[in-house]
Amino acid sequence: MFEESFTVVREKAPLVHNITNYVTVNDVANILLACGASPIMSDEPEDVVDITSICGGLNINIGTLNKRSIEAMFLAGHRANELGHAVLLDPVGAGASRLRTETAQKLTEEIRFDVIRGNISEIKTLAKGSGTTRGVDADAADAVTQENLEGMVAFAKDLSKDKKCIIAITGAIDLVADEQRCYVIRNGRPEMGRITGTGCQLSGMMTAFIAANPENKLDAAAASVCAMGLAGEIGYSHMKEEDGNSTYRNRIIDAICHMNEKVLKEGANYEIR
Amino acid sequence: MFEESFTVVREKAPLVHNITNYVTVNDVANILLACGASPIMSDEPEDVVDITSICGGLNINIGTLNKRSIEAMFLAGHRANELGHAVLLDPVGAGASRLRTETAQKLTEEIRFDVIRGNISEIKTLAKGSGTTRGVDADAADAVTQENLEGMVAFAKDLSKDKKCIIAITGAIDLVADEQRCYVIRNGRPEMGRITGTGCQLSGMMTAFIAANPENKLDAAAASVCAMGLAGEIGYSHMKEEDGNSTYRNRIIDAICHMNEKVLKEGANYEIR
Amino acid sequence: MFEESFTVVREKAPLVHNITNYVTVNDVANILLACGASPIMSDEPEDVVDITSICGGLNINIGTLNKRSIEAMFLAGHRANELGHAVLLDPVGAGASRLRTETAQKLTEEIRFDVIRGNISEIKTLAKGSGTTRGVDADAADAVTQENLEGMVAFAKDLSKDKKCIIAITGAIDLVADEQRCYVIRNGRPEMGRITGTGCQLSGMMTAFIAANPENKLDAAAASVCAMGLAGEIGYSHMKEEDGNSTYRNRIIDAICHMNEKVLKEGANYEIR
Repeated sequence: MFEESFTVVREKAPLVHNITNYVTVNDVANILLACGASPIMSDEPEDVVDITSICGGLNINIGTLNKRSIEAMFLAGHRANELGHAVLLDPVGAGASRLRTETAQKLTEEIRFDVIRGNISEIKTLAKGSGTTRGVDADAADAVTQENLEGMVAFAKDLSKDKKCIIAITGAIDLVADEQRCYVIRNGRPEMGRITGTGCQLSGMMTAFIAANPENKLDAAAASVCAMGLAGEIGYSHMKEEDGNSTYRNRIIDAICHMNEKVLKEGANYEIR
Repeated sequence: MFEESFTVVREKAPLVHNITNYVTVNDVANILLACGASPIMSDEPEDVVDITSICGGLNINIGTLNKRSIEAMFLAGHRANELGHAVLLDPVGAGASRLRTETAQKLTEEIRFDVIRGNISEIKTLAKGSGTTRGVDADAADAVTQENLEGMVAFAKDLSKDKKCIIAITGAIDLVADEQRCYVIRNGRPEMGRITGTGCQLSGMMTAFIAANPENKLDAAAASVCAMGLAGEIGYSHMKEEDGNSTYRNRIIDAICHMNEKVLKEGANYEIR
Repeated sequence: MFEESFTVVREKAPLVHNITNYVTVNDVANILLACGASPIMSDEPEDVVDITSICGGLNINIGTLNKRSIEAMFLAGHRANELGHAVLLDPVGAGASRLRTETAQKLTEEIRFDVIRGNISEIKTLAKGSGTTRGVDADAADAVTQENLEGMVAFAKDLSKDKKCIIAITGAIDLVADEQRCYVIRNGRPEMGRITGTGCQLSGMMTAFIAANPENKLDAAAASVCAMGLAGEIGYSHMKEEDGNSTYRNRIIDAICHMNEKVLKEGANYEIR
């Protein structure tokens, strides 16, 4: 079920509504197209209910939230819930400001999410109600490591139970958990952290994966994480000496564009705990 | 007059005011620079009248419209009309939501456009007052094909008469029509549909072409469509095996950067009906 | 102190809060990451005070200003001043509209900036209270040249005294001045003007440089200008025949990604007057 979920995305070509930040929005659109989905962006309260109604998934990213877009997030989220659409939350910067923390909390209370995907600091903020997020990057002290892995897997499963949704924590080691199972994923490269928006891109792509695979959301979410990390590895192998983070950004999206079930199967590096 | 219009853009370097979506805005700016024009973006109602006054053309794109930017569209449109500037409408997603359909309709009623450029579903929506747009992409059932070409050419000419402006319908086969003549253009590649914003980029560039060539707007609009499609062909010929849609996006803008009257003359693939 | 300032940026990795335009925001984020800093974007009045509080620098760019973001600029600016953070103003398009000119003027009156960085038309507008900015590009008649250099250096020093901050005027020849000293910098290539946002990118990077080097702000600001121009030269040397402005954009950010104190020392081309 795991690698097949990519093929299903390419077959179903889900339309994904993104209420997302203006920093990385172009990359989110291009990676959705690269994986076989179609993006649409709308954050005007009077527009979002109609737009989300014609989509299969909703990706809510609070990276450059404002009062208008926050209102749109709730309206679209409620409508997507009514229609049974796949809904994902990317709580960018939760813990870095009161508005971000409270908006993310309120969204998780009022909207039924299928997945919450963030870095460890953002996820801990949602778990505890407060956090130590360093801007939009994870605090190094929070990182998932080989040493604290057992505890972090338990944390992810517990939070999944508490929040009633899949929890995806991405970093050097990625965790994708529901109450029972946790994928521990070791794809990716550290250089991905020097590009803006790999997390936002993953959230967009993950929304497409869970929208296209409603019966296997945990596997699909984990597959999208492996695909992103693997694209980071493949893209890096195509880098020339003078290439840097800007070219790397293109190469990662290009790698998703060429990826398929077979490539994913050979390259995915994960265990289930 | 057709290919020369590109040379005129490079000579006159028109300043184009864009009220456009935040998804593809950077690419719109870079393709305007690539073709020899200069971009400026502004969507604050208190700013747009001044800004459009110093420009030669106005490109209105409703891709991520909101109440503030809608107000700005009308203010800038009226001012551009007063000054006799070239004005283009890109009705992104008309047919996908009530707000988009109504805004596009109202704009065409109140503002005098030189060109309306969209995909076939968006244009049919404006013709009929409602549509079946699939998000921001055209509905496949609507496509202009070799089989329905005669009827579509007549549709474009009729709509041009009705809307009193040039109608540009882009897809696998592009139509650019006024009441009497219709350019049928067969440049481009299907892979361009896997990049976000090639339509938005074309709208920006087309605004520069009609602003620089006020005496030959139909030819200039058609030339910009050929230039964009040809850039898609040239850019594709520079793709390496591992390149995907993200690199392709760069290669298309790069190809416009290197394009000139001579390249356009050799590569343009069109007939007039 | 000059070239070392780059090493200090990489060591301290300052977090930079950007209230910036949506045209070039992604490139600003990626160049900040490329030089070793971390970007965060926020322009919602209710969010910016918290966000700027956790940062080391604030970059205010009025490129696509609106009433909401203007309010956020003042709130964030006052907070950054209270905390003694590095604060930079990029008055994009000052002189092109009343709102831009007045907002830039009011910002310089109410907020204590460490640097104002713009093209010559924008800076002259701030000096005179009105200007002849051609959209967001400098008016050619205003350019700093070998012939008027002496007078322009005096102008920059005088304005620095008047505005009580470093003045950075970028163009073919760049000037970075305080009351006593003016760096005259001759790095860069004319092709950089055919890419959108090299100025915005420099403003973001310069904010990181002055945030990381509070004891040597003039040298650090000048070093960032040399680094950007040198990246333009290095990036250009990696261009292939078919590459254009879109690929050039990537190559410049890539060159910053690979740059260090040693490369900067060898390539910096400046004199102090």
